[in-house]
Amino acid sequence: VRIGRGLLRRARLPADAPVLTDAGVAATPFYRRLRRILRGPALVLSAGERSKSLRSAERLYRWLAHRRVERGDTLVAVGGGMITDLGGFVAATYLRGIPLVLVPTTLLAQVDAAVGGKTGVNLPEGKNLVGTFTPPRHVWIDPESLATLPPRQLRGGMAEVIKGAVIADAALFGLLERRAPAILRRDPVLLERVIGRSVGIKAAVVARDEREAGPRALLNYGHTIGHALEAAGGYRRLTHGEAVAIGMEAEARLAVRLGLLAPAAAERQGALLEAFGLPRRARGLDRPAVWARLLADKKVRAGTIRFALPDRIGHARFPVTPPLDLLKRALDHVLR
Amino acid sequence: VRIGRGLLRRARLPADAPVLTDAGVAATPFYRRLRRILRGPALVLSAGERSKSLRSAERLYRWLAHRRVERGDTLVAVGGGMITDLGGFVAATYLRGIPLVLVPTTLLAQVDAAVGGKTGVNLPEGKNLVGTFTPPRHVWIDPESLATLPPRQLRGGMAEVIKGAVIADAALFGLLERRAPAILRRDPVLLERVIGRSVGIKAAVVARDEREAGPRALLNYGHTIGHALEAAGGYRRLTHGEAVAIGMEAEARLAVRLGLLAPAAAERQGALLEAFGLPRRARGLDRPAVWARLLADKKVRAGTIRFALPDRIGHARFPVTPPLDLLKRALDHVLR
Repeated sequence: VRIGRGLLRRARLPADAPVLTDAGVAATPFYRRLRRILRGPALVLSAGERSKSLRSAERLYRWLAHRRVERGDTLVAVGGGMITDLGGFVAATYLRGIPLVLVPTTLLAQVDAAVGGKTGVNLPEGKNLVGTFTPPRHVWIDPESLATLPPRQLRGGMAEVIKGAVIADAALFGLLERRAPAILRRDPVLLERVIGRSVGIKAAVVARDEREAGPRALLNYGHTIGHALEAAGGYRRLTHGEAVAIGMEAEARLAVRLGLLAPAAAERQGALLEAFGLPRRARGLDRPAVWARLLADKKVRAGTIRFALPDRIGHARFPVTPPLDLLKRALDHVLR
Repeated sequence: VRIGRGLLRRARLPADAPVLTDAGVAATPFYRRLRRILRGPALVLSAGERSKSLRSAERLYRWLAHRRVERGDTLVAVGGGMITDLGGFVAATYLRGIPLVLVPTTLLAQVDAAVGGKTGVNLPEGKNLVGTFTPPRHVWIDPESLATLPPRQLRGGMAEVIKGAVIADAALFGLLERRAPAILRRDPVLLERVIGRSVGIKAAVVARDEREAGPRALLNYGHTIGHALEAAGGYRRLTHGEAVAIGMEAEARLAVRLGLLAPAAAERQGALLEAFGLPRRARGLDRPAVWARLLADKKVRAGTIRFALPDRIGHARFPVTPPLDLLKRALDHVLR
């Protein structure tokens, strides 16, 4: 993973490699600059989560086959999580695997999707139900790509940044508390530092656990409840980052009720979420629908739900299997 | 990998695991016996290579999702190479990988598809263009499953057995020469021995090379030309085994012309192919079509074709990059 402003102008990217992107990214100044370096054929999908489908995967497979892309050739995926997840899945499975270079262009993809090797596509039955664990060959992160990112997406990415700080990096948490306004103004030096720390947290956790059995599950903090909220809202009411923010609020509350986390630490987290304009409550969601989604989670085993929960700012533990009545009360707290 | 007659009656298979099979297998006495042990829900696809598609993969993914199959649950795939390849691909990618048990029911799948972890589905543009390298959790091989296998499929499987003997096992080659009639009568003791040796050859080669960079390519003997013949015939004129047999005839001829292999050794191989009722010539195929398919092979790099070729019975080397004019003459030899 390389991170730096203006980095791509100096990057040795494969100039004639096939490029996957979406229409939203293709319209940005950053992509137009990138295409001066990346001159290969480009497949441009419709923007949005609906493109993260087996249908899109098939379209990309066949596009690669028609272009006679061979086993040693590299695919370059330029975009947010939809593009990096889909491109990652296709690169992992076309000809049983070809090299992949990721150029993530959203904060969320930069700190999350681009590290750890998770790839995925959605089914009508749920998100990321199909995928692999396949690390990319290289990841190029240029904070300049965030210049035109919509504010709601920038805030959503910050939810993942805050999550990383809570589970593993108290110093980053302090930096975020002190510099929230400057980060939201996209101060490039700060952004580079924040992305670097966040990528480092994730890389360190993943390096200890490639297949998600142990430490890697720490990264799911806020996501177990967050995914249920996101799904119950039909993936329209809440962005992924907003759902994770509310999920962290609920799971911190759960940790407090279990006696794991001090109430003051949960309140510090809540204040930081607010400082970045992130929600702590979900309004208008159907409580039974959220509960049903929670029980349908991939991480459910033998009827119990295993959570990663913080026990102080900068540290978390896994697995914690709370009694279901405490879980219900934590949910009620954010669904009020 | 466990091999033995009546083995499945004693196997500790997951009794309620979901089962994938095809209509041809589902109609056999072997499958009916197996279903007394495997009582989980079954998805029965149409028999034939056309089912080895992304469409079938999607159908299986959604079937698993509807049944709430979770990450620790096991899929059991019962059938020939179509089922083991497709089931392997879906198990490798559903929820980013669930455990897989293979019960191969053709000789070809038993000696080939069930070992090495290659999974795959076809695109309209070509066979196995999508897939992974993911070893199954267990492989159960019961020679009783071959009792009702059509003779042409039994002979096809023998092509892979002979290939393994030529590249790595001179003693097996001698056994096949001596006992061809008894093997074709499906003598169960002999079948068990032949399958065991063949699986052992492949497992030993694959163990040295999980990702097909070096020694594993030895297993492609007969397949580089064989695949081109199979594809040029539209996958209808020749079975995979027949194409491999003719491919071995051509590639042995190539090895002789390169001075690698003694002519008498090539003739021994030819006689053994005939003893098992396998063809040494392809009639009625379009020569330019075969040549075009050969140049479209996945193993082509930088315009040269890298072959695995025997230098004596029981030993082969890789890579050998023959001059294209010698390759053309070897092709002419089998297309006469």
